[in-house]
Amino acid sequence: MTQPFPFSAIVGQAEMKQAMVLTAIDPGIGGVLVFGDRGTGKSTAVRALAALLPEITAVEGCPVNSAKPEDCPEWAHVRSTKMVTRATPVIDLPLGVTEDRVVGALDIERALTRGEKAFEPGLLARANRGYLYIDEVNLLEDHIVDLLLDVAQSGENVVEREGLSIRHAARFVLVGSGNPEEGELRPQLLDRFGLSVEVTSPRDVETRVEVIRRRDAFENDNENFMKKWRRKDTDLRKAILAAREALPKLVTTEAVLHDCAALCIALGSDGLRGELTLLRAARAIAAFEGAAEVTRAHLRAVAPSALRHRLRRDPLDEAGSTVRVARTLTEVLP
Amino acid sequence: MTQPFPFSAIVGQAEMKQAMVLTAIDPGIGGVLVFGDRGTGKSTAVRALAALLPEITAVEGCPVNSAKPEDCPEWAHVRSTKMVTRATPVIDLPLGVTEDRVVGALDIERALTRGEKAFEPGLLARANRGYLYIDEVNLLEDHIVDLLLDVAQSGENVVEREGLSIRHAARFVLVGSGNPEEGELRPQLLDRFGLSVEVTSPRDVETRVEVIRRRDAFENDNENFMKKWRRKDTDLRKAILAAREALPKLVTTEAVLHDCAALCIALGSDGLRGELTLLRAARAIAAFEGAAEVTRAHLRAVAPSALRHRLRRDPLDEAGSTVRVARTLTEVLP
Amino acid sequence: MTQPFPFSAIVGQAEMKQAMVLTAIDPGIGGVLVFGDRGTGKSTAVRALAALLPEITAVEGCPVNSAKPEDCPEWAHVRSTKMVTRATPVIDLPLGVTEDRVVGALDIERALTRGEKAFEPGLLARANRGYLYIDEVNLLEDHIVDLLLDVAQSGENVVEREGLSIRHAARFVLVGSGNPEEGELRPQLLDRFGLSVEVTSPRDVETRVEVIRRRDAFENDNENFMKKWRRKDTDLRKAILAAREALPKLVTTEAVLHDCAALCIALGSDGLRGELTLLRAARAIAAFEGAAEVTRAHLRAVAPSALRHRLRRDPLDEAGSTVRVARTLTEVLP
Amino acid sequence: MTQPFPFSAIVGQAEMKQAMVLTAIDPGIGGVLVFGDRGTGKSTAVRALAALLPEITAVEGCPVNSAKPEDCPEWAHVRSTKMVTRATPVIDLPLGVTEDRVVGALDIERALTRGEKAFEPGLLARANRGYLYIDEVNLLEDHIVDLLLDVAQSGENVVEREGLSIRHAARFVLVGSGNPEEGELRPQLLDRFGLSVEVTSPRDVETRVEVIRRRDAFENDNENFMKKWRRKDTDLRKAILAAREALPKLVTTEAVLHDCAALCIALGSDGLRGELTLLRAARAIAAFEGAAEVTRAHLRAVAPSALRHRLRRDPLDEAGSTVRVARTLTEVLP
Amino acid sequence: MTQPFPFSAIVGQAEMKQAMVLTAIDPGIGGVLVFGDRGTGKSTAVRALAALLPEITAVEGCPVNSAKPEDCPEWAHVRSTKMVTRATPVIDLPLGVTEDRVVGALDIERALTRGEKAFEPGLLARANRGYLYIDEVNLLEDHIVDLLLDVAQSGENVVEREGLSIRHAARFVLVGSGNPEEGELRPQLLDRFGLSVEVTSPRDVETRVEVIRRRDAFENDNENFMKKWRRKDTDLRKAILAAREALPKLVTTEAVLHDCAALCIALGSDGLRGELTLLRAARAIAAFEGAAEVTRAHLRAVAPSALRHRLRRDPLDEAGSTVRVARTLTEVLP
Amino acid sequence: MTQPFPFSAIVGQAEMKQAMVLTAIDPGIGGVLVFGDRGTGKSTAVRALAALLPEITAVEGCPVNSAKPEDCPEWAHVRSTKMVTRATPVIDLPLGVTEDRVVGALDIERALTRGEKAFEPGLLARANRGYLYIDEVNLLEDHIVDLLLDVAQSGENVVEREGLSIRHAARFVLVGSGNPEEGELRPQLLDRFGLSVEVTSPRDVETRVEVIRRRDAFENDNENFMKKWRRKDTDLRKAILAAREALPKLVTTEAVLHDCAALCIALGSDGLRGELTLLRAARAIAAFEGAAEVTRAHLRAVAPSALRHRLRRDPLDEAGSTVRVARTLTEVLP
Repeated sequence: MTQPFPFSAIVGQAEMKQAMVLTAIDPGIGGVLVFGDRGTGKSTAVRALAALLPEITAVEGCPVNSAKPEDCPEWAHVRSTKMVTRATPVIDLPLGVTEDRVVGALDIERALTRGEKAFEPGLLARANRGYLYIDEVNLLEDHIVDLLLDVAQSGENVVEREGLSIRHAARFVLVGSGNPEEGELRPQLLDRFGLSVEVTSPRDVETRVEVIRRRDAFENDNENFMKKWRRKDTDLRKAILAAREALPKLVTTEAVLHDCAALCIALGSDGLRGELTLLRAARAIAAFEGAAEVTRAHLRAVAPSALRHRLRRDPLDEAGSTVRVARTLTEVLP
Repeated sequence: MTQPFPFSAIVGQAEMKQAMVLTAIDPGIGGVLVFGDRGTGKSTAVRALAALLPEITAVEGCPVNSAKPEDCPEWAHVRSTKMVTRATPVIDLPLGVTEDRVVGALDIERALTRGEKAFEPGLLARANRGYLYIDEVNLLEDHIVDLLLDVAQSGENVVEREGLSIRHAARFVLVGSGNPEEGELRPQLLDRFGLSVEVTSPRDVETRVEVIRRRDAFENDNENFMKKWRRKDTDLRKAILAAREALPKLVTTEAVLHDCAALCIALGSDGLRGELTLLRAARAIAAFEGAAEVTRAHLRAVAPSALRHRLRRDPLDEAGSTVRVARTLTEVLP
Repeated sequence: MTQPFPFSAIVGQAEMKQAMVLTAIDPGIGGVLVFGDRGTGKSTAVRALAALLPEITAVEGCPVNSAKPEDCPEWAHVRSTKMVTRATPVIDLPLGVTEDRVVGALDIERALTRGEKAFEPGLLARANRGYLYIDEVNLLEDHIVDLLLDVAQSGENVVEREGLSIRHAARFVLVGSGNPEEGELRPQLLDRFGLSVEVTSPRDVETRVEVIRRRDAFENDNENFMKKWRRKDTDLRKAILAAREALPKLVTTEAVLHDCAALCIALGSDGLRGELTLLRAARAIAAFEGAAEVTRAHLRAVAPSALRHRLRRDPLDEAGSTVRVARTLTEVLP
Repeated sequence: MTQPFPFSAIVGQAEMKQAMVLTAIDPGIGGVLVFGDRGTGKSTAVRALAALLPEITAVEGCPVNSAKPEDCPEWAHVRSTKMVTRATPVIDLPLGVTEDRVVGALDIERALTRGEKAFEPGLLARANRGYLYIDEVNLLEDHIVDLLLDVAQSGENVVEREGLSIRHAARFVLVGSGNPEEGELRPQLLDRFGLSVEVTSPRDVETRVEVIRRRDAFENDNENFMKKWRRKDTDLRKAILAAREALPKLVTTEAVLHDCAALCIALGSDGLRGELTLLRAARAIAAFEGAAEVTRAHLRAVAPSALRHRLRRDPLDEAGSTVRVARTLTEVLP
Repeated sequence: MTQPFPFSAIVGQAEMKQAMVLTAIDPGIGGVLVFGDRGTGKSTAVRALAALLPEITAVEGCPVNSAKPEDCPEWAHVRSTKMVTRATPVIDLPLGVTEDRVVGALDIERALTRGEKAFEPGLLARANRGYLYIDEVNLLEDHIVDLLLDVAQSGENVVEREGLSIRHAARFVLVGSGNPEEGELRPQLLDRFGLSVEVTSPRDVETRVEVIRRRDAFENDNENFMKKWRRKDTDLRKAILAAREALPKLVTTEAVLHDCAALCIALGSDGLRGELTLLRAARAIAAFEGAAEVTRAHLRAVAPSALRHRLRRDPLDEAGSTVRVARTLTEVLP
Repeated sequence: MTQPFPFSAIVGQAEMKQAMVLTAIDPGIGGVLVFGDRGTGKSTAVRALAALLPEITAVEGCPVNSAKPEDCPEWAHVRSTKMVTRATPVIDLPLGVTEDRVVGALDIERALTRGEKAFEPGLLARANRGYLYIDEVNLLEDHIVDLLLDVAQSGENVVEREGLSIRHAARFVLVGSGNPEEGELRPQLLDRFGLSVEVTSPRDVETRVEVIRRRDAFENDNENFMKKWRRKDTDLRKAILAAREALPKLVTTEAVLHDCAALCIALGSDGLRGELTLLRAARAIAAFEGAAEVTRAHLRAVAPSALRHRLRRDPLDEAGSTVRVARTLTEVLP
């Protein structure tokens, strides 16, 4: 049972799966924040997606998985020019991790034994070109979350501590899960996640039985179960790779730009990250669907994920943010 | 008096004893959380269960009690292929334990004397294939509890600290005791315990006298007392071993899956851990009772332990969770 | 004036003196918690009791005062088999003591000079087979008190810190003093003390003058004063030793067990520590009085000390716990 | 895409751009504090300005970028007299930076390996003759902000810690961004920033579409886009250099001094930093516009930036500070 | 001006001066707590008293000023048997002192250079046989005050830290000053000071002028001033030495013991430290006055200092404690 | 522009300038506390005063600027007897300074490299015979302020930490600035400053223009500006030196002593520091004015600075302290 549960076999949770697929097509969309009930398979999904993605080609021994020898950071002293393949990295931020392991730190062993001030890369280095998963992002201290978002956005880890002054590439998709009942994230942090999705436990018996049934098959009839679903996962991988190729050729009309802006103004989202993310996500879904140009339908498909977490609180409007986005979509992009 | 009190000689507390027996049959059920009054023998019970279970066979010198030489973690540098037997480990989390002793840490002695960065395994390593007992789980800091639950669930201890990056198997049953009057556990933590039971002091004189009488015999007439009860403990061990064997062959009908889902929906339990645990526990008790397939009676027998701690707080329903589970059982699984 | 004030010369405070004598007869009763006014001789009493008890025989050089060479802990590397006598240890927990000195810690000196990870035993080791005294237990942090009670109850000190994994016997009677006006102890802590007593300043002139007079004689006419009271202390020691011998032979009828249970149910004491302690204390006083079997009179004599601190708070009953125990005694054991 | 977005291509935000240009002309104006919505390009702007400024000439190897060999600090042991050119430094204060990296600290490596107490310069050294950028200045602890403002004002970093007693030039323009909704800065800190500007997301569709369009061109048609805007950036650089030259020759009449004082008195700004900054900023803009003497128009142009953050809170005047400055300008400098 | 202001030249403050003289006669009375206004010469007084007392004879090199070679603590490795004279030590507890300097600590220098775990004595060692002065005792943390009072009372410093287990004599008089407006001391701490006095600024012009005049003479006409007052100080020293001699021979009648008890009962002082201190102080003043036996007049003279800080707060009695003591004295000892 | 702004060229702020001049004449007056608005030149003034004072003659290499070789502290191991001249030291307490740098600390370098426990003097050593300036004294932690005031008053720095036990002269004038809006100083701290002054921004246009004009001339026409004002500064220095000489010869009548006491009683100032400081300050101003004896006019001139910060808060008198001092002066010294 060392293989993860197949991505395609996850029952329901369409919005969460879509958001993850989109970031697999264009990591520049930014991270995904998954809100919702306990026990709804958030952690399962991210592991499943990781297993589905194609392997990456990286310089042998490079601590940041660089795609070209000249991209390996200087401090890493990598000599090799040999390329190796690795699974797309999915790095967990385990509870109790210390900040020095996140960003990297002075290599104490070498400092003590050789008197050298060498850098020991942290989890951010290992996550380069892959995923960084944080369960219960609400439980991390704000300054760590800040730091992760900073790096996720800039694609670079800048370390200034213990006399070290180091930089390295750290381009990864941040996937965080959180339960809004346990204390909200600050709006500043929310805004910096690309997409957000809400997951809930299914409320009808059939869906829940289906979940149990698949889980049961996965555990007790693993071989047949994996054979069946691995095929679907392969189809999905191909679609993602095709979409990555198609992305640069996509046409985006002025009308779509206007729609993005109009929608964000109507929703009163702060700043301009809303429309920029909306546009990127719409392009990614258009490419995934094989369309030649972005349409209103694409905007509509991704707007909830792209905008839900950027609304200004409106004390006169008691509707939840999902409802507000839906209502505004109907009015602005009829 | 170095032998613990016999498990079978514990007076009453049927639900607690059942929950412990079930996790002995299928450790995948997850841990047991014991709520209740002070001085009701929680700590005695877990020690008694440990003494009753069969010894495990493990690689000599392996810090995580691996069953096969190839399972010993790399960092442990175990050379031996000789197998030894050990009592089922029961590890106490003593008060004042530091986090480094829980997860393991840099071996300072070797770092200082040989300049090597070696890993010194912690209590989680020692608990592999056994039990980890925490008295007054409410008194532990949340981040330690989180960490323990994380590892208990994944079966793996991932250590990222002090420049170490280590993993090892850590499959154990977590048994925690707590007193709800001393501050509740967060719902997120509750949900991740497999079963929960409530223990109370017996309220009738005869039962209490029986407790004192057996305790008295244990202390003052130890030899006869142990002879009498050891036999009962042996019977129980055999039943547990038989149930472990029977478990994979058990039939689970679709109707049972529907019952699980219907019950959880009616109770409004968050997520899907409720039905998954319920099913596992029902299977375990069916196997224990020698049944060929899981029935509603089995679901009814374990539903309180499996679901009691997963109910959403209902402000309009003042009944305690035990009462709510019982009421819903009558309605949904008549 | 290096000899402490004689135990027998303490004016009044009969309940405190009785509780201390009982734990001297059967240390298994658990510790004594002394509540009360400042300046009522709590600290004097414990020192006086210590001076009165017979010396213990211990292995030379053993850090835990073991009675047999084979009982010395492995880590202590004790070679000697010679036996020496020592005064019954009475260890003070000085204010400002650090946790590492309580439980023991890594021996830094040896770590630095010889690169060895040796254990340096703490106060718990020194207190083995004796008394541990804490003045103003309310002023200690809860986690230290927890730790002391844990060890006092299990009789074993388990150290898991700084890469050490050490155990040693730590069987001692914990004597704590506290002033309830300075913040209460948590009920969980209270329940784990065997006995509790209340001391107050005497309110009549004659008793107070007697206190001053004896104190004055102790300071200004020490020789005569000690001669007079040492004789009484010797009588008391003999009585304690006789009671220790008599204890195993004491008869305890079923009726007494019923009385214990009935009394605890009537008082609504949580858990079963109430009756177990009550029974032990009643046996100790019966043995002290030279009785052949435990009677209701013995239960009545020790019930206030054994149960006072285990009552559930009853918002409808404003009487103090001493009054409630007395009232219930009259009703249940007339 | 390693080149930053061009300064001239930033849509709108005229006040922010003006403030940054003024500090490029006369760094003595003090730092710029940018208040406002998230996602309004604050961080983009400061990077863009840095790219636009001319390179500086500095002594090779000098840790504080000194313009003359004799200006290199003693502790730096710089031997070289060779001059090199460097980009105008723009130093980011990354989240999680430690105080020792800001001010510099004992060089642990040399202390350990050579037993010398050498100084390892920090970010303040690197920022000399350039910019220091702090995102979300509200999230920094007050004592760090205090320290930065102290150094920014005195132009010198005085380090008294770990047995070091070091000074070096640290003349830089501090640019901080902050969101007033996340907790205000203390008035004492506000007063020490030279200028403050407010940025808001544009509220009309056309402007927002223009932002998206330029961003899109920057990402997808980078070469043409840069060619177009680089020319505008070059014009701006020339204007800045010309203004620096013109500054000392500018005439400032007594009337202008009176206007400065009258305006500050009318606004009730504390202390005299208001008029001193107002005068400097007015001179800078006059020089930028090629004027021969400072006029009321120049005062009007910079008064909002120079004074907005120095107003005494007036409980009877509910208007925001921008409105109050505008109103007073109309009355006092008609 | 290296000589302190003469004790006898202090204007007014009779109660404070009396209390200090009494502790000079019998240090067993316990410390003195001086409450009161700022700038009333508390610190001057304690230094003045120190200068007035006769020198002590101590073993050369003994860190605790032992009077006999055999009293030097083992760990001090004192070889000398030569006796030297020293001024009565008066040790200041400077602000910012660390706990290790108070109680003593591991000698780091020897640990680092010789690998030995030696003890470096602290201020408590230096204060042995002298005075320990704490200005603004309210500003010390409670645990340090606790520690000082503990040691002051037991006359012994027990150090259990950093692997050290050390004891040494620490018999000193604790003099603390405090301002009740800056937060009260806990009653537990108050009770452990022997005497307390209140000082206030004089309210009449003549007294205040006298203070200024003497201070002026001390500073500007030092030689004559000192000559005049040194004689008075010498007389006082002789009286103190005579009183020390007379103390053991003093007669104390039963009636006096009754008076002590009656007074404390009437005042409702907790515990019995009240009468014990009252008796000691009365004896000291009787000896100072050359009386053959203690009388009611002596009790009256010292009762305010001995009892004022031990009164139970009486919510129905709004009078200050000084008034309450005076009123009760009139009633009980007419 | 390395020379500070001339003291004489400071516009207005007469009371602040007078207070600083007085402490230059008699440092025994104690420190100066400057309350008031931001940006009113407090920091400029103290630097200006420092530049104006004559150089001091000190032993070469002495870390505390001793005037005679025999005054150098033992621990400094100063060999030289050569005298050198230095500018009057003005030491800034930079923000972020650590306590060890204030009082001095163990010299880590020597401890590590030579195994010696040597003392590394701190800022208090460097400030000896000069000024110590703290900007925003309210922002320092109370225990540091306490420590500074302690040393300022006693003229001696006593260090008891890290196994060191060191003393050295530390006679300096403490100048602190503070803004009462940012949290008041405790009365205990206020009382220990010798003088306090209030500064406010000028409210009339002409004065403010004059400030800008002089500042402008200082920056843009430095040479002429300095020539003009340096002459005035030289006159002031001569007057200060003359006053120092005259001080011991001044006559102080009994009437003046009575006036001091009467004034302080009328104002209800606590303790006697009020009159002692008032007298010293009055003498200093008398000496400065070349008077032969102190008169009421001198008392009147300095009373606001000497007493304003020592008034007891009077809830029935809403007038500010400056007004209350003025009113009382009129009544008591008409």
